[in-house]
Amino acid sequence: MRKVAVAGVGMTKFGLSEKSQVEMFAEAAMEAITTSNLKPKDIQAVFVGNVLGDFEEGQMNIAPFCAAEIGLDPSVPATRVEGACASASVAIREAFIWVASGFYDIVLVGGTERAMAMGTPLATRTFAMGTDSRYEEFAGITFPGAFAMVAHLYSVKYGIPLAKLKERMALVAVKNHKNGAKNPLAQFQKEITVETVLNSPMIADPLQLFDCCPFSDGAAALVLTTEEIAKKLVAKPVYILGIGQGSNGPLCRQKDVTRIRAREAAARQAYKMAGLTPQDIDVCELHDCFTIAEIVASEGLGFFDFGKGSEAVEKGETQIGGRIPINPSGGLKAKGHPIGATGAAQAYEIVKQLRGECGERQVEGAKIGMTDTLGGDLATIVNIIYGI
Amino acid sequence: MRKVAVAGVGMTKFGLSEKSQVEMFAEAAMEAITTSNLKPKDIQAVFVGNVLGDFEEGQMNIAPFCAAEIGLDPSVPATRVEGACASASVAIREAFIWVASGFYDIVLVGGTERAMAMGTPLATRTFAMGTDSRYEEFAGITFPGAFAMVAHLYSVKYGIPLAKLKERMALVAVKNHKNGAKNPLAQFQKEITVETVLNSPMIADPLQLFDCCPFSDGAAALVLTTEEIAKKLVAKPVYILGIGQGSNGPLCRQKDVTRIRAREAAARQAYKMAGLTPQDIDVCELHDCFTIAEIVASEGLGFFDFGKGSEAVEKGETQIGGRIPINPSGGLKAKGHPIGATGAAQAYEIVKQLRGECGERQVEGAKIGMTDTLGGDLATIVNIIYGI
Repeated sequence: MRKVAVAGVGMTKFGLSEKSQVEMFAEAAMEAITTSNLKPKDIQAVFVGNVLGDFEEGQMNIAPFCAAEIGLDPSVPATRVEGACASASVAIREAFIWVASGFYDIVLVGGTERAMAMGTPLATRTFAMGTDSRYEEFAGITFPGAFAMVAHLYSVKYGIPLAKLKERMALVAVKNHKNGAKNPLAQFQKEITVETVLNSPMIADPLQLFDCCPFSDGAAALVLTTEEIAKKLVAKPVYILGIGQGSNGPLCRQKDVTRIRAREAAARQAYKMAGLTPQDIDVCELHDCFTIAEIVASEGLGFFDFGKGSEAVEKGETQIGGRIPINPSGGLKAKGHPIGATGAAQAYEIVKQLRGECGERQVEGAKIGMTDTLGGDLATIVNIIYGI
Repeated sequence: MRKVAVAGVGMTKFGLSEKSQVEMFAEAAMEAITTSNLKPKDIQAVFVGNVLGDFEEGQMNIAPFCAAEIGLDPSVPATRVEGACASASVAIREAFIWVASGFYDIVLVGGTERAMAMGTPLATRTFAMGTDSRYEEFAGITFPGAFAMVAHLYSVKYGIPLAKLKERMALVAVKNHKNGAKNPLAQFQKEITVETVLNSPMIADPLQLFDCCPFSDGAAALVLTTEEIAKKLVAKPVYILGIGQGSNGPLCRQKDVTRIRAREAAARQAYKMAGLTPQDIDVCELHDCFTIAEIVASEGLGFFDFGKGSEAVEKGETQIGGRIPINPSGGLKAKGHPIGATGAAQAYEIVKQLRGECGERQVEGAKIGMTDTLGGDLATIVNIIYGI
């Protein structure tokens, strides 16, 4: 297997977009291609993460249209993958193997989604299709409901009073908004306080509005290539050191939703491939679709003992400058969460961090970064470790 | 790159199903696994082709639920790919590279779809989302409309009077129904005549009802592994000799819809990898979503000169026993077309043909077979060559 490098990355501003998904993808893709010092004709294959293109814009099979939009030849395969909110990370993993295997030398991968433009009522209903349609959906469960249950169980299991846990969850939102305020591509670039969170409308007890990430439009993309080619193309290639993917079934088959077995499996795969441990990670972008989701993810990835993630937030260990800075981009919470694009946007941030290009939100000296992307109500997890 | 083998295959009966998509997938998957003399725990990764799970059953991110249904561990990645009607073949191509690369030894891949159970009006509207949402869909184009245009252009371009072309198109349907009548898993197991076609209701001039494949429910699956493992597991491994995938943009960017450039590119890739030519193919399952689609595909794959495909049908060259038997399974026309499953069902037929297990519809002495799967209105094409 060949070492796989990221040559260039691209990303649109997240928020409300007037562009179509294909146009947003093309914008991010062209940035990734040009900053790789390549031209579209150099791209040998395309992978696109997209979740709800059919519901949003009546567009299925979006990948060939993305490829055509940047002028690629019919001989270039263009493939859509869907793993709910983890779609783009699943796409990166597919792109990875085609380069690692030696089959292709230069592959474009990214994600695109319009989830804000479709409006909250339809977005909420369609997102809920990521739950199990036979066992969960008919019961009316939505994602805020699922993660509210995680928060309640977490509180009980670890003996952390709910009021205390809610304060710590609020601190996750405060941190991520603080980071997002330093990210010009973030949907929310405004700091908030613990009071902002605790005084915001209740969504699904105990999750309040500011515990929840927004609906967003946006796209992000990467060019993957070999180590040899990347070194010729750009000054600072970033490498994929480890990659893992896991899968869970319906919630009813999961013993303990505060510990996502698919994540533990995926992270184990990624660490093993990289020959690294959680202590080696300098910066992490993880799936904070809800504040409690960041806490359980930080434990599942091995940064903190189980049950200790909320305390670590309180101690500032996950801030920029802390022991393990988490979501310096602002995360899903503040940067935004265009679901099919999120994994690629996480990769964008980690690549920029490892290149030292993040300005005010730079994690100083970061050499190894990790992404964590969750799809569905704990059904799909992809972890990727990047290094310079 | 390692040689990739198909150890076992499985397929549900096509038609109307009372099972969910996940249950149908599990049925096909368990047949593929058990006939490979394996157990579910041997599967290291899963790929699922599925197109409209969200519209049909409110189920996105279907792959982890498919994996859980057959009891797989959370460490097993399960990935959905979508390339409209080519989804399962795109999935096979993804599964292929993970085995060929040496990353995994045993991978399950298949497709599942409920398109009949959702009813014709919704199926027609949602299928149309495979067209370009910016340039085509708003004009009201559906798949019968797109292929009707192909038929008209074909008639004019090659100087074949429409009445003559319609008779030859009808002969495609007659042949495929004749083959389907010998396939116990086919949706239609009844022979028809040219008159049946020409007296059937007009759908989109010149395509009549019997020029069109049906909506179908069904699933099919394959176990891919290495040559070495396959030889230990089963008496008759079948090998993937060549594989290719191409992409087209919107119809308005295609110069000539009777020649699908994505197919010509995909076929070229597959032939090149296999070191074979069209003359080497003993049997082919191709994408006859409409009778005219079979004719243009037979030319695009190189079996006949451009403009000569309809004449070849008239001469019986595509029948079982003819020069190049096409769609011995009955094809999409008679076997049925559960869109996300079709590519895997084509693979099922070719594997069974190469093993000599097709009974009355056996192509005698077939050693090399090919599949051709089309997604969207000419947007995605996958070609795979199998051999013993």
